[in-house]
Order: sequence, then C-alpha cells, then structure tokens
Amino acid sequence: MAAHDLITGQCRWMEGSGPHAEIVITSRVRLARNLAGRPFPHLLDDKGKQGVLAAVASAAGAGAVAQRYGKLTAIQVSELPALDRQILVEKHLISPQHAQPGGGKALLVNGDGSIGIMVNEEDHLRIQCLLPALQLHEAWRTATGVDDALEETLDYAFDEKHGFLTACPTNVGTGLRASVMVHLPGLVMTKQIGRVLSALSQVGLAVRGFYGEGTEAVGNLFQVSNQITLGQGEEEILGNLSAVVKQIIDQERSAREALVREARVQLADRVGRAYGTLQNAHILNSQEALALMSELRLGLDLKLVKGVDTRVLNELLVAIQPASLQGAAGREMQPFERDVHRAQVVRNRLVTIQS
Amino acid sequence: MAAHDLITGQCRWMEGSGPHAEIVITSRVRLARNLAGRPFPHLLDDKGKQGVLAAVASAAGAGAVAQRYGKLTAIQVSELPALDRQILVEKHLISPQHAQPGGGKALLVNGDGSIGIMVNEEDHLRIQCLLPALQLHEAWRTATGVDDALEETLDYAFDEKHGFLTACPTNVGTGLRASVMVHLPGLVMTKQIGRVLSALSQVGLAVRGFYGEGTEAVGNLFQVSNQITLGQGEEEILGNLSAVVKQIIDQERSAREALVREARVQLADRVGRAYGTLQNAHILNSQEALALMSELRLGLDLKLVKGVDTRVLNELLVAIQPASLQGAAGREMQPFERDVHRAQVVRNRLVTIQS
Repeated sequence: MAAHDLITGQCRWMEGSGPHAEIVITSRVRLARNLAGRPFPHLLDDKGKQGVLAAVASAAGAGAVAQRYGKLTAIQVSELPALDRQILVEKHLISPQHAQPGGGKALLVNGDGSIGIMVNEEDHLRIQCLLPALQLHEAWRTATGVDDALEETLDYAFDEKHGFLTACPTNVGTGLRASVMVHLPGLVMTKQIGRVLSALSQVGLAVRGFYGEGTEAVGNLFQVSNQITLGQGEEEILGNLSAVVKQIIDQERSAREALVREARVQLADRVGRAYGTLQNAHILNSQEALALMSELRLGLDLKLVKGVDTRVLNELLVAIQPASLQGAAGREMQPFERDVHRAQVVRNRLVTIQS
Repeated sequence: MAAHDLITGQCRWMEGSGPHAEIVITSRVRLARNLAGRPFPHLLDDKGKQGVLAAVASAAGAGAVAQRYGKLTAIQVSELPALDRQILVEKHLISPQHAQPGGGKALLVNGDGSIGIMVNEEDHLRIQCLLPALQLHEAWRTATGVDDALEETLDYAFDEKHGFLTACPTNVGTGLRASVMVHLPGLVMTKQIGRVLSALSQVGLAVRGFYGEGTEAVGNLFQVSNQITLGQGEEEILGNLSAVVKQIIDQERSAREALVREARVQLADRVGRAYGTLQNAHILNSQEALALMSELRLGLDLKLVKGVDTRVLNELLVAIQPASLQGAAGREMQPFERDVHRAQVVRNRLVTIQS
C-alpha cells in the first residue's frame, strides 16, 4: 500500500462498531521498545536512525509478523510533506511528536491502520494497535503478538529489574500505554464531568484531549490512559483501566438516561438544532463542528434523531481536521477558507432524505 | 361560510404572489364610516349597536354589494370565544381592539378574507380590503367599491367641510388608512433601518409592528401607513404611500444585493442555519421563529436556499401565533407547551426532500 492510500483511506477504528461503541470511540495499546546496544533515537544521528529502521523493517518483513498480521507497509514519515504528516496525526496513526521535522522517522503500518509501528519516535519502536469501541484486551493481544513476533528477530533493550528500557523513565517497565477515547456528553451536560475526571487522576489514570497529551477535550471526547508503567504487570494495568472505563460507561449511561427522562424535549431540541446546523451551515470552525457532532452522536444513540451512521461521524472526526481538509481539497487553505470548506464537507456527508 | 371555516381557513393575502411580493407581504386599505343620525359606537348601548349591525348587514346583503363582491358572511365577533376572536386578529381580519370583550361587535367578510367590514369597532363601519404584495390601488378600488355599493343603501355621516365624520378625529376626512407590510431584513442587517424609518416619519407616514399600533417589529416586518386623513385626497394619500414604498423597495433590494455581493458566504451560512433550525428545533418561541423565518424568506428570495413556497411562510406567520396554535390544537396551552407545539408545526410544514 502506498502512503497515499493510507492518507486518504479509512481506518479500522472508524468503523464505529463493537462493545460500548456508543460511548467508547477507540481502544489503543502501544508498547515502547528499544533495540539493545544502540543509543536512544534522540542520541542517534541520521545514519544511526536508518540502521534502526533497517533492522525493524527487516524484522517486520520477516516470517512471523507477516504471517500472523499481514504485510506492513513502510512509510518514510520524514520524507512526507508536512501536510501529509499531519494527516497521519489526525488519523491517530502517528503521534504529534512523530510528525515534527527531523530525519529517520518512519511508520510501518497494516492496511486498515489497526497495527502500526512508529520507528525512531521517542523510542526505537512504538508498537500500536488501534481498534474501534472497547476492545482493550483485543488491542493488547494484537500489540503483544506483534511484539513477540518482532522479538523473534530483534534483540530488545531489557533489564531484569526494570523491564523494558525506554528513552523517558515514565515508560520504563512494561513500556505499555493503554488508552480509550470516550465520548461523555451526558457527564458534561449534567456537570458531573469534573468529579469523574478528578476521580480518575486519583486512581493513577491520565485524561487528555482528542489528540493526546497537551490537547484540549473538544467535542466531549476524552482520552483516558494509564500513567504507571512500572511495578504493575500488563494484565493488571489493562484490568484496572478496563474496570474504570466500565464505571465511566455506567455513569455516562446513567447521565444520558437522566437527561432523556428529565429533559427529553430540551435534549431533542438541542440535538435537532445541532443536526440542522451541521446539515445547513456554510461556515464551521473546528471547535463548533466537533461540539455539534458530539450532540448529534448523542442524539443518534438516544434515538432522538436518525439517519446518520456512527462510521460517518467517525470519518468526519478526521475529515474536518485542518490537514485532512486541505489534503482532500489538494491545496493549502487559510483558516476562513477551511471553515467554509469544512461546512461543505459536513453538509455533503450529512445530506439525507429526512424521514 | 361559517365562522369556523374563516378561522381555520387560509386567506387571500397569504398567497404571497403579486408585484414586489419578495418584499411587500400585504397591502391594506380601510375606510372608516359612520351612519348618519346615530351616536358613535362608544356612546351606543347594546341595542343601539344591534341596530347599526342590522342596518349594515342589510346593506351588505342587498343587491349592489352581493352582486359586485359576492356574499359577505356575518360573524358575531362578540359571541365568539376569546381564542377565536384572537385568531381573527392573528389573520389580520379584525383589529386587536375589535377582539376586546364587549357587545355588538361583528365582522362581515368574504370567502377569502380579502374584503371585511368590522361593525361597531371604533366607528360603525371599518371597510377593509387586504391583498397580497404591493396592490394598494387594487385594494383601494375594492374598498371604495364596497363603500359605494353600501352607500346606495346606507346614509353616512358626512360633512361638506370635514368629510366623513369619525369617532376619533385622526380619521376624519377621507377616513382612509392605507398600509403595507414590508419585510426589510436587508436594511436591518446593513443597519440602515433607523435612517429609513426616521425618514418615513418625516414625510407623514407611521411605522408599526406586525400587529399594528403598539406592537413591536419582529421578524423584520414593518407596517407603513399614512398618518394624515384630512386635507389630502384619497389618490394623493395612496400616491404618496406608493411612491415611498417603492423607494423602500429599492433600498431594500440594494441592501440585499450588497449583502450577497460582499458577504455571500456569511449570508448563506446565516440563512442555512435558520432553515436547519426551523426544520429541526423542538422548542421555538414566537420571537425566535419569526426571526428565523425572516432569514429563510430572505434566503429564498436570494436563491441561497430553495424548496419553500412563500405561501407556506405566510401561512406560518399566522399559524405560529399563540391563538392560532391553540385553535389548531383544539386546546389551551401554557407558554412552554406552545413553544414545543410551535416547533412541531414549523417542522411539519418545512419538511422537504432536500435537493
């Protein structure tokens, strides 16, 4: 698969089906790994990074990985135009850091974007599995399976006492970061979100925005992940996160039911207006679009409106982002032009025969 | 025709076609007349008012009127429930004053509501002709024709020096009040409306809201009428008003063209959002509904949206009013319930297959 297909195509996570898909958008597991006997990427020169990439690409192309997980395509991220790098970020295929300028950065990725290996990000390897809905254990099984298959060829930097060694101490140990993207409009509307988020930090979980660390929670989307990678086994980390996410799901579900029970007309009004605005606006900034899409997503779950598939909303989550908008249009655009184009993209996707 | 048909049926003025119908909603001419030798209504007891009504009904039923203008149905306004009286106001068939409690008030009206005679309002007779679009002279010809036909039977209070005598001195002389309802969103949006309205008062014209004296200009609808009834002939009054209205039309047209030329996308956005909100909201108060319908009407004229007939918007102007809403639903409603019902009525009328 060419980089171009990946940039324009759809990803597995956008399917929008699976357990608790009405609240959990994605489940992601990533493993930080480094090759033994080589400096971490920030200490490597270009040649050193190319050496890492050659080793990883060779291992990924070898029997075990390809047999079990299909062919991974290598994308030389550093050689892509900035806009294309940003599109990969918007699709959640690479981290914002991995899109920064600098040599030797690559992505090995399967056809639907559910398996990816960032090479020469902060660590030599960042193995990622990204699935729709609440599928943390499935994502974990895939990521660790890829990890095992790679290890048949690669020699990882591993310490009996500390576990996997990583460039940043916050990842030492399991090197595991598991996260879920949850949509919590009910908790936001009923003003319970502050309490829920502060409870999460007390049990060692981090909450971030739609694009990870340092980004804001727009569109009522929150990314919840484990903070601790050391001193807990992988199963324990995943078990803790899953248990907490299930509590959040219950609370969000209760909040939605309370809203329908106590303010059905007001909610239908809000959802309807959001839908009508998305279908008819000619200028939409990113923040407003995400806010309205959140209300529409809620309304669809509660059957207050119909006619839009979750997949469409997930695809739009990415399609309305600045780089994806410009990539699809084939040209750079100023912010106002993007707002106009964003509204057009949304209108075109949401045109339905009303029933 | 029964009172019931008139209350639930559509009126001629709602047709929404005719000269300058994109800016002028209605043209209205009314003539204040009193019968000679009888006290004005406010000095009459019930029996006296019944005498006036009997005389007027007899004249209206006599040859000349019926032959030329068709049968007029007599509605005993005083005997209608308050809600039905208010519906007649909302349809512009009677004045707000004529809907107040008190005996002896009647309306003689033709099948499409274009010709009406209020009996025992402030004067014994208020002959009204109400037409769609800019048809002041047509309305005048009809009103004065009815007047002439009635005069073949009735003896009017008339003074050689002062002209027709009326209960209030502001109507003495011709007894003529001509008015047009104009829709001026362009002048409002471009902030020229203040200048235009103050110029109107300087040439002796009055500007009022959608329901006449003392009502606010909502939905960018303004009623422009002559102040002076004495010292000018009917043709002069009508000619002045027509000339000024044509200037207003030109200015509104220029303002709309400027908006399209200089802010087309912003206007399309505003109009689209208004349309989407009207089609999807579940709670709409009267003021918001009128404001959104004004933007939709503008967008239809400028071809920024399509699929809604002007007639539908005119019917909705009345259908969303409190009494009409309750009349159609067959029950009284509290304000919030009306807002919910209003949104439903609007949604149902504006559901279209989008093209």
